[in-house]
Amino acid sequence: MADELGMDLFGEIDPPQRLLMGPGPVNAHPRVLRAMSADLLGQFDPEMTGYMNQVMALYRPIFGTHNRWTMLIDGTARAAIEASLVSLVVPGDRVLVVNFGRFGLLLTEILGRIGALVETVDAPWGETVPLDAIAAAIERFAPKVVATVHGDTSTTMAQPLEGLGALCRAAGALSYVDATATLGGMEIAADRWGIDVVTGGLQKCLGGPSGSAPITLSDAAAAHIFARRHVEQGIRRADITDGAGPRIGSNYFDLAMIMDYWSEKRLNHHTEATSMLYGARECARVALGEGLDARFARHAAAGRAMTAGLRAMGLRVFGDDAHRMTNVTGVYIPDGVDGERVRTAMRDQFEIEIGTAFGPLQGRIWRLGAMGYNAMKHKVFITLGALEVCLRCEGFAVSAGGGVEAAIAAWDA
Amino acid sequence: MADELGMDLFGEIDPPQRLLMGPGPVNAHPRVLRAMSADLLGQFDPEMTGYMNQVMALYRPIFGTHNRWTMLIDGTARAAIEASLVSLVVPGDRVLVVNFGRFGLLLTEILGRIGALVETVDAPWGETVPLDAIAAAIERFAPKVVATVHGDTSTTMAQPLEGLGALCRAAGALSYVDATATLGGMEIAADRWGIDVVTGGLQKCLGGPSGSAPITLSDAAAAHIFARRHVEQGIRRADITDGAGPRIGSNYFDLAMIMDYWSEKRLNHHTEATSMLYGARECARVALGEGLDARFARHAAAGRAMTAGLRAMGLRVFGDDAHRMTNVTGVYIPDGVDGERVRTAMRDQFEIEIGTAFGPLQGRIWRLGAMGYNAMKHKVFITLGALEVCLRCEGFAVSAGGGVEAAIAAWDA
Repeated sequence: MADELGMDLFGEIDPPQRLLMGPGPVNAHPRVLRAMSADLLGQFDPEMTGYMNQVMALYRPIFGTHNRWTMLIDGTARAAIEASLVSLVVPGDRVLVVNFGRFGLLLTEILGRIGALVETVDAPWGETVPLDAIAAAIERFAPKVVATVHGDTSTTMAQPLEGLGALCRAAGALSYVDATATLGGMEIAADRWGIDVVTGGLQKCLGGPSGSAPITLSDAAAAHIFARRHVEQGIRRADITDGAGPRIGSNYFDLAMIMDYWSEKRLNHHTEATSMLYGARECARVALGEGLDARFARHAAAGRAMTAGLRAMGLRVFGDDAHRMTNVTGVYIPDGVDGERVRTAMRDQFEIEIGTAFGPLQGRIWRLGAMGYNAMKHKVFITLGALEVCLRCEGFAVSAGGGVEAAIAAWDA
Repeated sequence: MADELGMDLFGEIDPPQRLLMGPGPVNAHPRVLRAMSADLLGQFDPEMTGYMNQVMALYRPIFGTHNRWTMLIDGTARAAIEASLVSLVVPGDRVLVVNFGRFGLLLTEILGRIGALVETVDAPWGETVPLDAIAAAIERFAPKVVATVHGDTSTTMAQPLEGLGALCRAAGALSYVDATATLGGMEIAADRWGIDVVTGGLQKCLGGPSGSAPITLSDAAAAHIFARRHVEQGIRRADITDGAGPRIGSNYFDLAMIMDYWSEKRLNHHTEATSMLYGARECARVALGEGLDARFARHAAAGRAMTAGLRAMGLRVFGDDAHRMTNVTGVYIPDGVDGERVRTAMRDQFEIEIGTAFGPLQGRIWRLGAMGYNAMKHKVFITLGALEVCLRCEGFAVSAGGGVEAAIAAWDA
């Protein structure tokens, strides 16, 4: 019977070779894709748990931390955000969100579903929130948790985080940062910033595919979460005792069980996504092999070159220069130019993808990324050259080569 | 500073070539791993959305359904279970769990966290629940949702599901089945069974890695879930209106937004795990290329051979013969034999993994799997031959070759 539903098998997987210069995902580093083709292991095989321990070690420097609890969540970046918030926050807790874009709004959305009492301290899209405004909001609202985003790709802004952890600790609040869009491309200093929980993704500056999300937790956050430990029936063990705190509202995102899975306890929770773990491991090896300082400098050069090139073409760059993410740049669509026609021409004529925008910026800006394996000279220059041609085709006057030449000059500036 | 944390990069990924003959994960089909090394695409690239549509079409026959809403959840099999339950069930809803093992208990655990009123109808581990007992429980409890497992690897039992959908519909209940361990290996007939939501995983009979979870939803289930639609702030659109029902308690697992993401609306929710999607697509192409009936027959032959071989070695097979999963077999550890020493010898001497057990069966049975790419004659025979040697080394009397010969005879029986 099953075969009677019989059907087309379509062809072998054979995607076109697109150059992904939007806000992410971007093209994966070939070493990452190759690592993912290694054969699988059983989840408690000593070779597998050895790789898990290596992943924990490899991601500590990437997060700028010595935190023991540094591991992966099996899902996209958004999965790690929800795992952090549902494990940190008890329904009814007061949570302050430092909000300056779509991904700040996402935090409020997730927190609302968890049942938190949410207040925000906001900046207009294209700006960031001053530390003294955050301090005043913490003073006024007395939150249990403060949550924010490092780089919000919707606005291309990077929120300064120096000093935030100290503010939170002084107020007795735990802190959370979504670093999805900057991890591996801009410095993340979980320990120096004093942030309790930081999460990321592979598909931006780390040059991997979406589907595995690195996370790090301070000892204080881990203790808070272990106090809510509730091991599921069917796998309870004498050596793992439940905490006295309220049970975490999700099983899949229960960080207490996930930490027990990644610890020497090896509690059977989910079945670790082995190929994604191999990929995450290789992302970290590529990044650390390059050297993090060199990698941050490369992303900074790419952002500088992209911005200079766009300006030299007569375009207006979006947002506050002082707090720009290095790896994604917003630029206003010129008056009289159809933004979607240009994006289509970029894809059809040059196999290059650039990004559209969300919410109040939809139809007003494009977002051009250069991150991970794509934060490279030639990819930035090729993208600018192609954009110039597509703009001229739409009747916007751009002098030939000016954007590319300015970008070349800016790369080494 | 980041580099000052500097460290060992460990070596290139190079796992030993283990033969995974436990309850899963198993070795992936090489075609699946190769497909996963294809270059990435932007998430709304027409080539990418084309692949997403192909995945929807390819998984319909695998689920035995014509359901429009047939897609992937970005996470392990457990992620799809939680997405189904949190989207179907409103806190306070009465939910009946048909429970016959660890994964039935997992359903109760997830439901408890959602805030459902849960009642179970149970079978002892090693048996299944008779349909009339389920009917009586539905009559008595009047649940809004009935949830169960198809094959529960913890007990190696497959729950008969013929007629369950009709019972649920007559009572006005929606139905959910976790088919993680059988999808692609035993027949799943979502439409004929009348089950509203069925979920699976790649790492068992589909011969892929863990990390992407196929799901199918009936129109009735989809309508129920869309009535709870709540599009997150920051990506709201005029063409997508919220439902009147209570908001779903999770953002990541909100099936209304996930369906909108997989529909022509292409709502921006998560960033699809592209490499895992390529892998899931290839799993389905391998399965449908073989033919589902041939594939189910191959798994049945493997289970028959494994069972016959174990019995010919003088071992006692666990559980009810009438309701055995074809792809995983439980066998009692003989008196006086140290189960973990045998498992270690199997791995150290033969590079073969066999499974331990959970809860009441821990230390009492081993679980031997033969599924997906490993449901093959030679892998079953090699495993039995190796087990025979390891048992003799532990002092358990087994006559040489008897198990393998019985398995060879049973394969074609």
